[in-house]
Amino acid sequence: MEIDLNADMGESFGAWRMGEDEALVTVVSSVNLACGFHAGDPWTMHRTVALAVEAGVAIGAHPGYRDLVGFGRRKMELSAEEVTADVLYQLGALDAFVRAAGAHLHHVKPHGALYNQAAEELELALAIAQAVRAFDARLILVGRAGSALLQAGTACDLQVAGELFADRRYLPSGALAPRSMPGAVIDDPKEAAQQAAQILSEHMVTAIDGTQVALTGSTLCIHGDRPHAAVFAQAVRERLEGMGIQIAPLRRPKDG
Amino acid sequence: MEIDLNADMGESFGAWRMGEDEALVTVVSSVNLACGFHAGDPWTMHRTVALAVEAGVAIGAHPGYRDLVGFGRRKMELSAEEVTADVLYQLGALDAFVRAAGAHLHHVKPHGALYNQAAEELELALAIAQAVRAFDARLILVGRAGSALLQAGTACDLQVAGELFADRRYLPSGALAPRSMPGAVIDDPKEAAQQAAQILSEHMVTAIDGTQVALTGSTLCIHGDRPHAAVFAQAVRERLEGMGIQIAPLRRPKDG
Amino acid sequence: MEIDLNADMGESFGAWRMGEDEALVTVVSSVNLACGFHAGDPWTMHRTVALAVEAGVAIGAHPGYRDLVGFGRRKMELSAEEVTADVLYQLGALDAFVRAAGAHLHHVKPHGALYNQAAEELELALAIAQAVRAFDARLILVGRAGSALLQAGTACDLQVAGELFADRRYLPSGALAPRSMPGAVIDDPKEAAQQAAQILSEHMVTAIDGTQVALTGSTLCIHGDRPHAAVFAQAVRERLEGMGIQIAPLRRPKDG
Amino acid sequence: MEIDLNADMGESFGAWRMGEDEALVTVVSSVNLACGFHAGDPWTMHRTVALAVEAGVAIGAHPGYRDLVGFGRRKMELSAEEVTADVLYQLGALDAFVRAAGAHLHHVKPHGALYNQAAEELELALAIAQAVRAFDARLILVGRAGSALLQAGTACDLQVAGELFADRRYLPSGALAPRSMPGAVIDDPKEAAQQAAQILSEHMVTAIDGTQVALTGSTLCIHGDRPHAAVFAQAVRERLEGMGIQIAPLRRPKDG
Repeated sequence: MEIDLNADMGESFGAWRMGEDEALVTVVSSVNLACGFHAGDPWTMHRTVALAVEAGVAIGAHPGYRDLVGFGRRKMELSAEEVTADVLYQLGALDAFVRAAGAHLHHVKPHGALYNQAAEELELALAIAQAVRAFDARLILVGRAGSALLQAGTACDLQVAGELFADRRYLPSGALAPRSMPGAVIDDPKEAAQQAAQILSEHMVTAIDGTQVALTGSTLCIHGDRPHAAVFAQAVRERLEGMGIQIAPLRRPKDG
Repeated sequence: MEIDLNADMGESFGAWRMGEDEALVTVVSSVNLACGFHAGDPWTMHRTVALAVEAGVAIGAHPGYRDLVGFGRRKMELSAEEVTADVLYQLGALDAFVRAAGAHLHHVKPHGALYNQAAEELELALAIAQAVRAFDARLILVGRAGSALLQAGTACDLQVAGELFADRRYLPSGALAPRSMPGAVIDDPKEAAQQAAQILSEHMVTAIDGTQVALTGSTLCIHGDRPHAAVFAQAVRERLEGMGIQIAPLRRPKDG
Repeated sequence: MEIDLNADMGESFGAWRMGEDEALVTVVSSVNLACGFHAGDPWTMHRTVALAVEAGVAIGAHPGYRDLVGFGRRKMELSAEEVTADVLYQLGALDAFVRAAGAHLHHVKPHGALYNQAAEELELALAIAQAVRAFDARLILVGRAGSALLQAGTACDLQVAGELFADRRYLPSGALAPRSMPGAVIDDPKEAAQQAAQILSEHMVTAIDGTQVALTGSTLCIHGDRPHAAVFAQAVRERLEGMGIQIAPLRRPKDG
Repeated sequence: MEIDLNADMGESFGAWRMGEDEALVTVVSSVNLACGFHAGDPWTMHRTVALAVEAGVAIGAHPGYRDLVGFGRRKMELSAEEVTADVLYQLGALDAFVRAAGAHLHHVKPHGALYNQAAEELELALAIAQAVRAFDARLILVGRAGSALLQAGTACDLQVAGELFADRRYLPSGALAPRSMPGAVIDDPKEAAQQAAQILSEHMVTAIDGTQVALTGSTLCIHGDRPHAAVFAQAVRERLEGMGIQIAPLRRPKDG
């Protein structure tokens, strides 16, 4: 069995630093790089692409809303045309650094409020998927497992990948329990590793209310913004490897 | 004989309109499209690329400083690394729309203060040329005829093109007379056409002080921000065509 | 009888121009000036304050969402704290120019999506009203007649003013018919003047479905972004004056 | 004898944190708060003003160039009118939070490249001083000791204060040795305290080349962006207090 571990990176901006990119990049198999709208200035993008290329991880784009102050976490209402244009812009911008580094863009995972809204709103999800399709039909579209974004990607003939969360509790609906709900965030790396192991081996997760929910996916999110993110991630990785699960980037059929 | 007529386009931003793109695009053979830093939001870029593709003109990138309020016209001091990263970012962003429209990026002409500084400062010019080279070695780098930017492009093994001005007077040095100097801007389309005709046929221009200055180039700038820009441009075009000069995009050797 | 005519102004940004401020300022009695988040850079604010002071109109702040590309017209979800801080910031920024010009800020009217959301969402409306209250308790808070924003202003002990629209049809609920609805916008200045006259004399408006809706307010919005805005506004003004209605800024009780 | 210790604060932006404001605010007597152009979003400004008010330090504005990516550290060329407008805007924006907190703005110290350029360029310095004067003639203008900014402030009838540096070496000219020069930055708190002690007691400083340079000023800069900034600052403060020097905010004559 195989799973991808992905982490958001390159979320510094100018003089402001965020994340433990140097440490995390050695634990994960894929990275999602900010593209300048919610985080990530051009020079940060250049450096983070170099870091990812050196680590040999798969590089994806992490486009978000144009909202630096809100870090792309605030819901916005854009027209479908605006979303498609904003995503295209960000894909191209990041791709310039990836090409200049002699690498290839591998996947796209929307950020923050764009990710969350695209999990629920099909029209928005389609606007994203169409941008990805128009840019490069070989890119893998990553969204929450079971979300409208995967549906949209499939409708646009894109390969999709469902994202799983080790350190967040699920609702019975399969959605994530909001951070404001007590117990929604799992702070113990062992517990997080246990949830990941359960999902991967049983294709089920114990929801926050104790019910069992069916859940499958192919990439596991590693949060870089928690304290001791790299240590936490390493614990999850080791548990999965101990179960005989191999950590590897998402595969494209054509990759064989 | 052949000359390229180029105009800056796509310089609207959100709800704000600028330029007479629809009219000008039918007069010129090349357009330079704003990439979001000094002007040009993603949706404007999408629409302007579509306009250019429909008109069949050569599409270039028009990267500038990240200074919306100043429209990229205010001198800034960036490190060479920042310039390279900023230009790469903008090239990629515009290219996404060009690719999505099934077209190809053809050239790069820096905007405003970046253009002017790159005409004089070789280190800055090299930072731009290296970005272009890293992005796509087939792109033509456009700079003021005789400028450091052309020197930098050549040093980076790029094809370069010297830009000429019909509606601006020259200094004896071959630089443009600053707009603040009386008579620096030519407002009569006949006079502008006459200057263009002189440069193209004699490879000389009568400078603002009456001296004759050697000047050669392969693309003529058509300003879109003057009153009646399209009418002005049409007058210049007709004069040149009347001289038997053909209006056509810059050629790449490989284009044959 | 007396009515205030207000117009949004100062919505240019850097090199981009918007509106017919010079013409409109002579027709209205109050202006609402953009504060830099949705439009209006500092130099534009300086110039527009000077224009308003010279014309002798009442000067209000027109704060909006921090969304230049979307001109503050796109709905966003901010926390109440963020809204209060964003409004305070914008009030202070504009006030600096008003103070420097020897004038006084008179009222506050939120812009675009912030205005529309504040008409419906009381928590958001309170966040705005609290910012106004904290900045200067003598400011008048302007919102759509009958909206939650007026309710919030009253709850914060602010003087409030209900805004009326001459050139937009109303729904039976008293809300504005969305622009996407056929007939929602009134393009004939006579018809607009007629609607204004009806509201002011009868305190009723004929809704888009023909029903009569009760409606009272104390300031009438003059849109500056329609074609021939100043001519349109002048027609409305003349009709009202012809009815014996005096055009004058909103009065504060303490103004006597 | 008395000296003011000042530190730049409120330089976080949205989700990005910078500085050790909570620790530093207890060591200094004055703070200079970012106003949104180079750092400091509205919510950060609100919180930092609250922190400063609680600590009882004097609150100043720290306006900079509109360059978030460059943190206001990159030289720009603005017209004098643009500078005056940009500074006015930022003063007003910060003042809104200060007023809402029941406090008063006390001084203004430009940031980064604006500070450095204003130390050398009198026209720029005057543009800043005029903004301060127009906003509130009682504000104290802080600039590098011996700089053109103090000259401009005096010409505008403002009270001025010369800033001294404990942790930077001086050139024989009285300017700061550029950070790129070996030894320009003093990393040993004892050495920094010694330099501060020397300047305050002898009105002289030993320049980087060993020469003695006359130097007087009334506020000492405490850098918040060095490692262990608060510990460093505390060491300097204790040394000065040990010499019998009292740490207190700049006084305005009218404060008595």
